[in-house]
Amino acid sequence: MRLALTDEDRSVREWFRETAEDLGCTVTIDEMGNMFATLAGECTTVAPIAIGSHLDTQPAGGRFDGILGVLSGLEILRCIKETNVKLFAGLTVINWTNEEGARFSPGCTGAAVWSGHTPLKSALDRASSCATTTLGHELNKISYAGKLACDSRKNPISAHLELHIEQGSRLEDASCSIGVVNEIQGIRWFRVRVTGKRAHSGSTPLAERADALVAASKIVVLVEELCIKYGAFGTVGTMNVPNASPNVISGETNFSIDLRHPREATLSEMEDRIRHEMAILSTAKEERLSFQMNRIWHSPAQAFDPLLLEYIAQSAAARCGHDRYQSLRSHAGHDSALVALAEVPVAMIFVPSKGGISHAPEEWTDKQDCIIGADVLYNTVLKYDEYMRCCSQHQTGERLGTRKMLESFL
Amino acid sequence: MRLALTDEDRSVREWFRETAEDLGCTVTIDEMGNMFATLAGECTTVAPIAIGSHLDTQPAGGRFDGILGVLSGLEILRCIKETNVKLFAGLTVINWTNEEGARFSPGCTGAAVWSGHTPLKSALDRASSCATTTLGHELNKISYAGKLACDSRKNPISAHLELHIEQGSRLEDASCSIGVVNEIQGIRWFRVRVTGKRAHSGSTPLAERADALVAASKIVVLVEELCIKYGAFGTVGTMNVPNASPNVISGETNFSIDLRHPREATLSEMEDRIRHEMAILSTAKEERLSFQMNRIWHSPAQAFDPLLLEYIAQSAAARCGHDRYQSLRSHAGHDSALVALAEVPVAMIFVPSKGGISHAPEEWTDKQDCIIGADVLYNTVLKYDEYMRCCSQHQTGERLGTRKMLESFL
Repeated sequence: MRLALTDEDRSVREWFRETAEDLGCTVTIDEMGNMFATLAGECTTVAPIAIGSHLDTQPAGGRFDGILGVLSGLEILRCIKETNVKLFAGLTVINWTNEEGARFSPGCTGAAVWSGHTPLKSALDRASSCATTTLGHELNKISYAGKLACDSRKNPISAHLELHIEQGSRLEDASCSIGVVNEIQGIRWFRVRVTGKRAHSGSTPLAERADALVAASKIVVLVEELCIKYGAFGTVGTMNVPNASPNVISGETNFSIDLRHPREATLSEMEDRIRHEMAILSTAKEERLSFQMNRIWHSPAQAFDPLLLEYIAQSAAARCGHDRYQSLRSHAGHDSALVALAEVPVAMIFVPSKGGISHAPEEWTDKQDCIIGADVLYNTVLKYDEYMRCCSQHQTGERLGTRKMLESFL
Repeated sequence: MRLALTDEDRSVREWFRETAEDLGCTVTIDEMGNMFATLAGECTTVAPIAIGSHLDTQPAGGRFDGILGVLSGLEILRCIKETNVKLFAGLTVINWTNEEGARFSPGCTGAAVWSGHTPLKSALDRASSCATTTLGHELNKISYAGKLACDSRKNPISAHLELHIEQGSRLEDASCSIGVVNEIQGIRWFRVRVTGKRAHSGSTPLAERADALVAASKIVVLVEELCIKYGAFGTVGTMNVPNASPNVISGETNFSIDLRHPREATLSEMEDRIRHEMAILSTAKEERLSFQMNRIWHSPAQAFDPLLLEYIAQSAAARCGHDRYQSLRSHAGHDSALVALAEVPVAMIFVPSKGGISHAPEEWTDKQDCIIGADVLYNTVLKYDEYMRCCSQHQTGERLGTRKMLESFL
């Protein structure tokens, strides 16, 4: 258990810094506490290729989610150092702050600020789950509020690769070692508060009731119906009735909605349908019933970079054979989805999760699969670095931040 | 605030005992801590008429619910003493233990054991809401576990009258001071546990889900539909998802159901329909979803005694005029419903609740209405005592416990 910005998080950050420095890296920290361990390349005018993920965890573990991505980056740095490989663009291994969002919800905060998705101030002001502190305060407390601007334009990278466990069982079911993650579905989180009229269960006729829990339950049922209709994922995970009692009609009910689909337009349509139904329910009760539905998180649907995907597929085919890897969609949210908003080429590699279990102490990926994953990742970095070297022969000395820019020189 | 069997409850019990003893009563305590303050009548072979209610309260008050019923009994005892009235059957004022059920749910426990509805042992073993103690333990702690059998056959009464606040606004709306409570609706409480499969919201397809909260929500919607169909009252007041998280499909959801209707057959039909729907939902998910629905409380539907109702109506008409009282049904549960199970003639008198508010510090009944209520209650006692005196002229010396027995002598 290593919640973001706790003493445990500080310990692992210090270990990360020392390990990277021992490997010859320069470690920089930005305003969000994102850590960049950079090994310079031959060319000092292009941004480095990044391998990024996170070292924070959910309250009950596990030992692979995020951590595999950062540790495989360090392992690749070690390989480069030991084998004396000379990279063109250089490599930076990133530990993004608060990916899990378990302590400061929602997650992917460090990457979201870096890409311009979330303003720095709103991220630093974010309250902890028990509302006793803020993200900014805890960042200062563990001395990881850096001076470097948390801004993709001021601290650019030329690509972002992330090795991650699948957190599902598709790879295991298909006996594959590698998933080439071609897209990540969009995720929208809502916090809903229904306000009705608290009243005695025994003496309030049905027609006079404005029962917040009944209204909330109708929305739960609707979310399931919409998911069937649109082929989407939708979940009401939390539901809370303050001061509940068996013989009291609920005057307030709070719940969450988690909607996921690979197309933003579909997510918007589902959101509209939910808001429309809330308006109908409210009108039927002559406004004695009201809904507040706030979108508290949005991880955009992202198709990953075709060239990086091609390099991952080539590396996987070479490492483990054509029948041991497959393309798939990421259902969970990841830092990579946020990083991609900065128009940086991004792709992800999945390795199998035993039994699909994640966010639990039982989370497991066999050592062999971890090794294959890191090998494919390393090979992809090498291919992309080579690609950048080719591009650079056409460049004019400007710093290359995105492939869009790179290609403009071709 | 005076939760059952706390130090506050002990204080009020001691005050009740001393006050009653000062009025010449004998105070006895039974195994459930029910207190009987008895003023002997001329005839020592018939059971006394009872005025009963409760002195415990909900966590946030109020000052009238239950308390009015016991205090009006003491006031009537004082009147009898001061005016030197000689009763035939005698009068006992009862403080029933744990009517509210706020600390040891469900309520009406003292009356339920006395009438044979609930076994003594199960009542004494009942855990407190925070599960740190039992009712029996707390009863001993405040020294109110008496020696007298808690049994209507061994400690009989010949009738039971209860003056109570309405906890609704029908009397206020009709500008009435007195409600002649002709019946009390049946109440069934259920505790439901839905067990599904906890899983990741982002990676579990709809068809594979066994979402406990979705299943629970469907039952909430069904309860409302059934209430509309049957003209019943039904409420899901509590809903709880253990270890809830916005991105976790609920593997367990717990909720309560409160069903009320004046006919037991209708309640049984509604209960059957709910169990049937649960079986359908469970089968549709191939038993990965299961429901446990336990009935945790049953306060039977009761039509009150016609003769007592006639005496109350006569007393009300004489005290405040024909347009200031009305017949009505009790929607809430009361000790009287349980007492009636012992085949004792029972009836209730309601006085208005300001704004219908109850179980809250704002609970209020005007002093004038309290006085009218106590007067009507006293007059009803006198009428019924006179009725018993008439009956006794035909009796053979046996102790008269119920009107059924009384009438057999007519």
